[in-house]
Amino acid sequence: MKNDQTLNELARSLFLQSAEKAAVLNCKVASVGGANLIDAGIDTPGSITAGLMMARLCLGDRANVSLHPADAARFAVCNSIHVQTDHPLAACLGAQYAGWPVQTDDFFAMGSGPMRMFRGREATLKELNLSETGSQVVGVLESDKLPTESAIALIAEQCGVAPSGIHLAVAPSTSIAGSIQVVARSIETAMHKLHELKFDVTSIVSATGNAPLPPPAKPGDMVGGIGRTNDAMLYGAEVVLWVDADDTAIEAVAANVPSSSSKDHGRPFANIFKDYEYDFYKVDPMLFSPAVVTIHNLQSGRTWSHGEIQTDVLRRSFLS
Amino acid sequence: MKNDQTLNELARSLFLQSAEKAAVLNCKVASVGGANLIDAGIDTPGSITAGLMMARLCLGDRANVSLHPADAARFAVCNSIHVQTDHPLAACLGAQYAGWPVQTDDFFAMGSGPMRMFRGREATLKELNLSETGSQVVGVLESDKLPTESAIALIAEQCGVAPSGIHLAVAPSTSIAGSIQVVARSIETAMHKLHELKFDVTSIVSATGNAPLPPPAKPGDMVGGIGRTNDAMLYGAEVVLWVDADDTAIEAVAANVPSSSSKDHGRPFANIFKDYEYDFYKVDPMLFSPAVVTIHNLQSGRTWSHGEIQTDVLRRSFLS
Amino acid sequence: MKNDQTLNELARSLFLQSAEKAAVLNCKVASVGGANLIDAGIDTPGSITAGLMMARLCLGDRANVSLHPADAARFAVCNSIHVQTDHPLAACLGAQYAGWPVQTDDFFAMGSGPMRMFRGREATLKELNLSETGSQVVGVLESDKLPTESAIALIAEQCGVAPSGIHLAVAPSTSIAGSIQVVARSIETAMHKLHELKFDVTSIVSATGNAPLPPPAKPGDMVGGIGRTNDAMLYGAEVVLWVDADDTAIEAVAANVPSSSSKDHGRPFANIFKDYEYDFYKVDPMLFSPAVVTIHNLQSGRTWSHGEIQTDVLRRSFLS
Repeated sequence: MKNDQTLNELARSLFLQSAEKAAVLNCKVASVGGANLIDAGIDTPGSITAGLMMARLCLGDRANVSLHPADAARFAVCNSIHVQTDHPLAACLGAQYAGWPVQTDDFFAMGSGPMRMFRGREATLKELNLSETGSQVVGVLESDKLPTESAIALIAEQCGVAPSGIHLAVAPSTSIAGSIQVVARSIETAMHKLHELKFDVTSIVSATGNAPLPPPAKPGDMVGGIGRTNDAMLYGAEVVLWVDADDTAIEAVAANVPSSSSKDHGRPFANIFKDYEYDFYKVDPMLFSPAVVTIHNLQSGRTWSHGEIQTDVLRRSFLS
Repeated sequence: MKNDQTLNELARSLFLQSAEKAAVLNCKVASVGGANLIDAGIDTPGSITAGLMMARLCLGDRANVSLHPADAARFAVCNSIHVQTDHPLAACLGAQYAGWPVQTDDFFAMGSGPMRMFRGREATLKELNLSETGSQVVGVLESDKLPTESAIALIAEQCGVAPSGIHLAVAPSTSIAGSIQVVARSIETAMHKLHELKFDVTSIVSATGNAPLPPPAKPGDMVGGIGRTNDAMLYGAEVVLWVDADDTAIEAVAANVPSSSSKDHGRPFANIFKDYEYDFYKVDPMLFSPAVVTIHNLQSGRTWSHGEIQTDVLRRSFLS
Repeated sequence: MKNDQTLNELARSLFLQSAEKAAVLNCKVASVGGANLIDAGIDTPGSITAGLMMARLCLGDRANVSLHPADAARFAVCNSIHVQTDHPLAACLGAQYAGWPVQTDDFFAMGSGPMRMFRGREATLKELNLSETGSQVVGVLESDKLPTESAIALIAEQCGVAPSGIHLAVAPSTSIAGSIQVVARSIETAMHKLHELKFDVTSIVSATGNAPLPPPAKPGDMVGGIGRTNDAMLYGAEVVLWVDADDTAIEAVAANVPSSSSKDHGRPFANIFKDYEYDFYKVDPMLFSPAVVTIHNLQSGRTWSHGEIQTDVLRRSFLS
């Protein structure tokens, strides 16, 4: 890891290494419209290792991602995905946040990864001056279909690169790899919520996050897939942030960061979503955050910790 | 890790690296009858790192093996051994299963590791078409003596390789390294039981396993060594399997996979073994399986979880 | 890791790699009086990764150090630092123990790391024949100021090396990296206490240790920094030792190893320290040890486990 590499460059190295050992990862290498693809769960079962790789790609390889044993009495399942980063702003908001709806006539997927910093159209990226340039981009698509030629053309155009400079890993949230890369978003979820709450996220120095690894939902059951991976965040994720800020700035937001601050909190996400007739825009945006958020202030030595794990909701979501 | 390497080739690379730094691993390199040996606990104390290495050798280096902190209130001890694989069939049943009793006039040890796929005589290997060929084999022997020349000659003959193509790591279950490599068998134990129950184990895509790391028994106390390491499995191991199968096929076996399905379940293994007058063939074969087995079905999104950790039995076994 | 490298050589390789990627570690490279410095928390925020690196430097790179998720219901915080070594004598007592008060007219810091084996003046090092020679030394300073030229001259003179042969990583215990490298001392604390109790520490073959990662105290609040990191040891650390000794030798000391054997045990260290008017020499030396110490005897298969986690004291220390 060199000092001066961009997150797209770091992720591209990881992508190329992963493509070389695709068979070992139970993945398939593919090419559409000139772009370089790794199928990690569409026409192949994928793997745990592929999920950890996708998570790192998403984070521009500026974070560690690992699987740990977990106590099922707390987390409903026996494994968790742990993330650790000293570059939370670039890795989580610059790269990992799924802020790009990649949409053409014949394709739709939520896009994430460092390629978003080439595109630069999202308000969050502009507000935080998160951008990168060059000729090679890396992204992750949550989808049960490979991107079409028109989708590749759109990405090339919006990122300002040739199709051959595009590197994408693709898997649905109902696959092993797809479920892992989603629940590796615990820190990102906390940071995005903090940004929504107008907290200065550039003051976040380091962070860890841990979330239960849910069973993949039935193939094609997108609501189930979104439901379980969201529930892993909302009711099972614990995030710790080391920040360099005023106590008053933290005090103003700390209690509102965890998902428990939302009026929609308390039921499996699939149920909430159904009650809003599957309209994302009706769901309280304050819901999307970890179950527990702990903030250590490096300026004062004080700690704020709010929220709690909801084992019963995790069980209802994962095991029914 | 290349796509096209056999498990024996992968394990041989790890063996050669380990032999080079044997002193750092508190191991000794030896040669008997032309074969290459690493003594990891006979004439040397061995080490934790050597135990993790032996476990990887056993698995044909197609799995991650790591030591984690554990809650002694659940596991009776403060550490567990965690295994994660995306190649459970080849790694656990093809390589790791201790299915070869290496016996000559002057030597006996249970043999495991990918060398078994060269020999190919075990029914399980034939039924599952697990075989490898070449000139170099890697195996693990659970023994408190180095193999004799006649044992090496037997391995060479049955594997069809020259003695110089044989690479063996050896340690008793009463050593640090030996106890680690045995309790790294949590996934293998679940898969072997599933195969006995006539479940199609080729449908298992990925797996994780976690088991407490027991204190090594007194040197020479083979029953104690077998007892504690077995108890780590029977009363302390939690295995998660991601499978691609029919719900009905899983439903038919799920409740019977954990050790609790056996009539012999409930007491330390050394006691059970004693009551059967140390005759393995009298012990219920259904006993040998993890305490908890969770199966996620990728086809349906459904999960089965059966069995439970028996902390009291672990305490009686490990701490008395 | 070669067999024949000294701990100073191993640590120097790690130091040079770390210096190259200093920016990625949120560290700064500096030079004072010809010595090579990494600032990991003085004029820069530092990072989790830098803390793990400092811990490894301290241990002469003969141990693994990693961050794990922890159950806040037991440890008061969501992360712990886990250490695993097969070279506990050299790594922990030879290198890691903070036994060198580096003091000149214009500087003071507790010095640790393998450089102490060049100096060789500490009684413990002499008693245990722990020494190294050569031209390059590596150390860690716990300080909120970079060492002065006179401090470098002192280290050079006492270690018998040129200033250009000195490699130091520096951070206060109130920084992220500084707090990590201190709580990575769980095994060392147990071994030092055992040596004080006249137990033969050369009989310790392998060891693991786990301790909660406390929030850094307020910059400049040295008592707070010392208090929280000490409390992570005294009330939160669990150490496991595999030893090759007589049962009677273990029996004679086992119950006295944990911190609970001290009359000062039971309150946050900062309170104890205050009551003794901040005079270290008045604190019971028997206090400095892990909360829980488990000893597995390889000779007999017996286990001793004493002490317990004190969650309430951890909460008072970390979260107030």
